[in-house]
Amino acid sequence: MKWLLCFFIGLIVSLIGFFNNLAVENIAGLKFVVTSNMMLARRFGMAFLVFSVSNLILTLFASIITAFIAPAAAGSGIPEVKAYLNGVDAPGIFSLRTLIVKIIGSISAVSSSLFVGKAGPMVHTGACVAALLGQGGSKRFRLTWRWLCFFKNDRDRRDLVTCGSAAGIAAGFRAPVGGVLFALEEMASWWRSVLLWRSFFTTAVVAIVLRALIDFCLSGKCGLFGKGGLIMFDVYSASVTYHLTDVPPALALGVIGGIFGSLFNFLLDKVLRIYNLINEKGIVYKISLACAISVSTSCLLFGLPWLASCQPCPSDASESCPTIGRSGNFKKFQCPPGHYNDLASLIFNTNDDAVRNLFSKNTNSEFQYSSILIFFVTCFFLTIFSCGIVAPVGLFVPVIVTGASYGRFVGMLVGSHSSLNHGLYAVLGAASFLGGSMRMTVSLCVIILELTNNLLLLPLIMLVLLISKTVADAFNGNIFDLIMKAKGFPYLETHVEPYMRQLTVGDVVTGPLQVFQGIEKVGNIVHVLRTTRHNGFPVIDEPPLSESPVLYGLILRANLIELLKKKAFMSATVPTSIDALKLFPAGDFAERGSGNGDRIEELRFTEEEMGMFLDLHPFTNASPYTVVETMSLAKALILFRDVGLRHLMVMPKISGVRTSVPSVSFFKILPVD
Amino acid sequence: MKWLLCFFIGLIVSLIGFFNNLAVENIAGLKFVVTSNMMLARRFGMAFLVFSVSNLILTLFASIITAFIAPAAAGSGIPEVKAYLNGVDAPGIFSLRTLIVKIIGSISAVSSSLFVGKAGPMVHTGACVAALLGQGGSKRFRLTWRWLCFFKNDRDRRDLVTCGSAAGIAAGFRAPVGGVLFALEEMASWWRSVLLWRSFFTTAVVAIVLRALIDFCLSGKCGLFGKGGLIMFDVYSASVTYHLTDVPPALALGVIGGIFGSLFNFLLDKVLRIYNLINEKGIVYKISLACAISVSTSCLLFGLPWLASCQPCPSDASESCPTIGRSGNFKKFQCPPGHYNDLASLIFNTNDDAVRNLFSKNTNSEFQYSSILIFFVTCFFLTIFSCGIVAPVGLFVPVIVTGASYGRFVGMLVGSHSSLNHGLYAVLGAASFLGGSMRMTVSLCVIILELTNNLLLLPLIMLVLLISKTVADAFNGNIFDLIMKAKGFPYLETHVEPYMRQLTVGDVVTGPLQVFQGIEKVGNIVHVLRTTRHNGFPVIDEPPLSESPVLYGLILRANLIELLKKKAFMSATVPTSIDALKLFPAGDFAERGSGNGDRIEELRFTEEEMGMFLDLHPFTNASPYTVVETMSLAKALILFRDVGLRHLMVMPKISGVRTSVPSVSFFKILPVD
Repeated sequence: MKWLLCFFIGLIVSLIGFFNNLAVENIAGLKFVVTSNMMLARRFGMAFLVFSVSNLILTLFASIITAFIAPAAAGSGIPEVKAYLNGVDAPGIFSLRTLIVKIIGSISAVSSSLFVGKAGPMVHTGACVAALLGQGGSKRFRLTWRWLCFFKNDRDRRDLVTCGSAAGIAAGFRAPVGGVLFALEEMASWWRSVLLWRSFFTTAVVAIVLRALIDFCLSGKCGLFGKGGLIMFDVYSASVTYHLTDVPPALALGVIGGIFGSLFNFLLDKVLRIYNLINEKGIVYKISLACAISVSTSCLLFGLPWLASCQPCPSDASESCPTIGRSGNFKKFQCPPGHYNDLASLIFNTNDDAVRNLFSKNTNSEFQYSSILIFFVTCFFLTIFSCGIVAPVGLFVPVIVTGASYGRFVGMLVGSHSSLNHGLYAVLGAASFLGGSMRMTVSLCVIILELTNNLLLLPLIMLVLLISKTVADAFNGNIFDLIMKAKGFPYLETHVEPYMRQLTVGDVVTGPLQVFQGIEKVGNIVHVLRTTRHNGFPVIDEPPLSESPVLYGLILRANLIELLKKKAFMSATVPTSIDALKLFPAGDFAERGSGNGDRIEELRFTEEEMGMFLDLHPFTNASPYTVVETMSLAKALILFRDVGLRHLMVMPKISGVRTSVPSVSFFKILPVD
Repeated sequence: MKWLLCFFIGLIVSLIGFFNNLAVENIAGLKFVVTSNMMLARRFGMAFLVFSVSNLILTLFASIITAFIAPAAAGSGIPEVKAYLNGVDAPGIFSLRTLIVKIIGSISAVSSSLFVGKAGPMVHTGACVAALLGQGGSKRFRLTWRWLCFFKNDRDRRDLVTCGSAAGIAAGFRAPVGGVLFALEEMASWWRSVLLWRSFFTTAVVAIVLRALIDFCLSGKCGLFGKGGLIMFDVYSASVTYHLTDVPPALALGVIGGIFGSLFNFLLDKVLRIYNLINEKGIVYKISLACAISVSTSCLLFGLPWLASCQPCPSDASESCPTIGRSGNFKKFQCPPGHYNDLASLIFNTNDDAVRNLFSKNTNSEFQYSSILIFFVTCFFLTIFSCGIVAPVGLFVPVIVTGASYGRFVGMLVGSHSSLNHGLYAVLGAASFLGGSMRMTVSLCVIILELTNNLLLLPLIMLVLLISKTVADAFNGNIFDLIMKAKGFPYLETHVEPYMRQLTVGDVVTGPLQVFQGIEKVGNIVHVLRTTRHNGFPVIDEPPLSESPVLYGLILRANLIELLKKKAFMSATVPTSIDALKLFPAGDFAERGSGNGDRIEELRFTEEEMGMFLDLHPFTNASPYTVVETMSLAKALILFRDVGLRHLMVMPKISGVRTSVPSVSFFKILPVD
């Protein structure tokens, strides 16, 4: 059953990914073809108008649907999914409307020539699909399928979301193994070996479906959808040989990547905080901000190529020069026939094509130093300023473009001293900037390999990634963690801080202690639920139910609310038979879809009901994990993370003798509970 | 500091791996060149004699050093390392003599034309290097370095061993990413994200060092060491395109791989059990068994090619045919000039060269059906019978050869209906047999990609791996787990069996309960240590030390023995000041090198000493993990595996009231403790 779900996740995500690419390639391609044709006719003003207005409309559309319909779809979504897998459930991140806005918004944002990517939104999309399938459809829109409602517990839901995010990367980059590793390394807080296999299965489905769809497209039925298919930057060249002399430039690239990466993270964090201030002022501000970014991007993209001088076409070019009517290495722009504008080839192009140009081999003399530098600076800052707008925007591709541009620059500086061609330097540059900003190792390495389809570069890519990550880690954290912090998600790190060794769990227990009796008065329960925000409560058996006060177990807020809703109250404090559980269909106590839980404030009770009793025993988890209050905080944190707990009970060291009530406290590290 | 250690592990393991390959290529190559020259001179009897005697000598050497010097070096070592990482410490697996025997024995076993691999022993070698470096050298041989003795606790040791085994695969297959994933998926029971990065670093070092060494070898200074370098089966061909029609054969290969793989595991398990019976009879039996296998292998390898008919050389062969004086696709064997023996090309060759031949492209008409079938059957059974001999032998390469042979056979059957060449079918066959016997997914996928250097096959390889694993899992378990069971290691599975949900931890607690007082009489401690085999004991504070009996913590057997050795006894039951800990250098309580602990039987005490007291408080772990006795066994198992525990204390539900001694029990799932 789970396998079937994984199969569907893979299938749907790959279809979405393919559709996404198809739409972007066609919309953006059409836009560039129309503008280029106007440029050919030397109607430059008109070309600029068409270019900037179409960009503005696309951006406006993306930001309006995001702001009005599903604000949770803004940004890349990776931090949200990561936080969810850590146990932090942000409202609305997995609803159907978020999914739809994410897909459509991402297509129009990417098509609008902003410096934004579509891989991040694909991860969120994959996670969304998984969560929706896992809860059997969307409740709000009555699209539920009974037979899909098998997985109602938290653990299965999280597993599916992990598989979904793996599928997202697999579909976004056509990198199935990279997707699994990304989910493992970056996303998941909690991992089982079964999960490895299941996510591998999901991404395998994605890989096979995509392969079949691309086969279909190769027959030319997909409009402007290029031959490369998706973003596969093929740097496949039969003779990658390199020697020890190529190691120093690679080391240099690693260091540069680390410095730029941490600077990028630092600036992005600052800009996001400023944007947050602007966005708080209202929807109009949000949308104006997006429009401002769009207009300035259009101006830069159209204006900057005029700075570059026209180059004569190389006589030995393998493709037509200048390229007319399609994407290619040599953009004509404003140049006379037989010449091309190298900056326009990079900047007045989709990001994917820019990367393809930078990675291309046998083009060592294509670019001028100044063009590459201008391109790098533009990319770097436009990426930072575009990331925080209210639309579904990713970071992967812009980071790859930026990295590739300075990589190519370093390659040009090294020149003939190296046996590597400049395209390979661009790959290494992209690796270093990814490593410096995202700080992953194995997964980035595999993703880059799968993107570039060249395994012989592997040792150098590993070297570059290690160095850039090490350098950047000296300055600040991973970009997703920074965004997560900026968004205020209380993420529980694996890392044990030194101060935690000094504290005991007793020091951080959340108070005040709220305890229920095994058979509790309805009024008490309602009062406690209304006055606290705890999500779990200890249940104590006291005399006469037991000889001495003893901890019976832990009951969850959601279950209590469900019980109160059913109003199966008793008039006396006599224990019910264990069959009470059978009165309720199992689904009622299942994990809710995110954000769909009832709230205590919505329930109303009569005076009479408030005086009645509830037997909590059948609904209590009778063997919760417990620790003694003197345990060090560090150890409790390890327990929390490694076992994937949501609640942990803290027991006093000496119990039952001094006081009649064992002072069981309720403890939470996860602040959302 | 840990990074430096990882660097050294990577460096040493890659040097060993390189040396290993160099030695094998030269010894085996020399043997084949000499024999082939004799064959050319048509002195067939002499050739057979030289071939079989040199094989016998090499096997004899490998089995003698293994049997007499380091029996722990027999087999692949992967099950032992896996068991160690699970917490089961087999005697002598990480000693210096095991390491040396493993390296030399593996070289001679592989050179002796047995159907054994060198990747498995490389994993053990890597783990050994890591463990030895981690404990600062070998105590027995006085090769210790003070500055390396930083990592004395169990967790750091395990982390290093994990990195070491990743480095082993990386060096064995030149597959750095595959190595990390192998360590993650197959070896480690307990994984942290830091470890991912550290093992990635280790394998990056391996990749870079190997790359440099191969560069050095390309200049021709390494004797018969081939151009391919290590076992890198390059199936790099510019035009891998496949269509939906290629999927059915791939599915069929997956199913075949699953069936053959599970059959292989089943037979191997049976044969290992029979061998165990033989081996138990004594060293002479062990060595005779190895010799018998060697002689029959030699006979088969030399005899079977006579069954195959000579083929005329193809006119369009890209390399010389027949190949003379070096390894190549077309072995002459007994054939007249201008002809070659296709079976000899496969069977009368090193395994690496056989794989290379099977994977080679543009050789679709090289092999006959009968030759491939004979080769497959020979490989299959020789691998099974060679695996259990008393020498360091691996399984990876024989499994790859076997899988590649039936893959090629299927490719020949499909023939021109497919757009894939037969070499790619051999790759898929190897993948299916690996998947069917070893049951890994992501790591095998990446290892195969890195071995064959062709990313475009990825979707098909994923498909084949998934199907073969699924089919094979229906019959029996992973081959390493089977070997581990046959060797009697008590491995703790992650998987929760259904019956565990019915049991509580109270049901499986090990008795009898042995408790120490906070200040305990030496005689009692000695008595308890001598009469039980528990490795940890609860420490209880009773009145007058505390108001009521209360659990103070857990003390380990090793620490008690250390305390007894120091004889820092007190004459009265007065608590010492906390400074007692300072009397001992920290190193005394550090984790011992494996198997080096003192034993209680070796300690002697006077009557007077037996009457004195020991204050256990400073040496007790005051916050051990505890569970209540009613917790389900399944939950306790999850706690054990996920947190990586060795001991777990079980508390009674109601304490302190009914009896004066809280009945704290000691509980272990890990049977080795």
